[in-house]
Amino acid sequence: MKKVEGLHILGTLTLAVDYVHRDMDFYKKEISLIIAEAGLTEVGNYYHPFEGGGFTGVVALCESHVSIHTWPEEYFVTLDVFTCNYSRDNRAATHTVFNQISALFNPISIDKKEISR
Amino acid sequence: MKKVEGLHILGTLTLAVDYVHRDMDFYKKEISLIIAEAGLTEVGNYYHPFEGGGFTGVVALCESHVSIHTWPEEYFVTLDVFTCNYSRDNRAATHTVFNQISALFNPISIDKKEISR
Repeated sequence: MKKVEGLHILGTLTLAVDYVHRDMDFYKKEISLIIAEAGLTEVGNYYHPFEGGGFTGVVALCESHVSIHTWPEEYFVTLDVFTCNYSRDNRAATHTVFNQISALFNPISIDKKEISR
Repeated sequence: MKKVEGLHILGTLTLAVDYVHRDMDFYKKEISLIIAEAGLTEVGNYYHPFEGGGFTGVVALCESHVSIHTWPEEYFVTLDVFTCNYSRDNRAATHTVFNQISALFNPISIDKKEISR
């Protein structure tokens, strides 16, 4: 059987040097809201704070996952949004989630790759 | 400041039609062992089983993340291993973890992309 290819967006955000990185729980809450509002289904997550204010977050979705790693001391963030298109076409939602999470950081640039898989 | 690029391996494994997909907890335990033996540091994870035997797992590492999504009914698995090289060079460990997790599924083919980010 031919599988339906999913969409994986890999991003690296560069932050302004005066960007004020907020508390991990702020991002955690916002990311879950963005996912839900885009119509994707979060089934669980794990977040871990690092010294210096950065954090790692991985979010399991019915449709695959979101992952985020922040290095505020280096002014960058990596963000991945990967969804399968198994039960329906999630590509628009994937772009929406990527763009809205990115916007939380008001980045000065976004290096983005899109991979079908 | 110039960040040190990390390595992200994105894989899609094709399984043999007679591969017997095991219980999620088997893979969860093996994946944690593989990560630890490669010298990477798991800080937490979230796994979710689906009907049909497939599962989604996301593992937060000090060095970034591992994610896995299995569709046994479609005979494929997507596997990502992403590590930063922030405190030391983790590229060899990244390949080791990717190869050893892949081997759990005895795949008939592996479609693999390596991205520096």
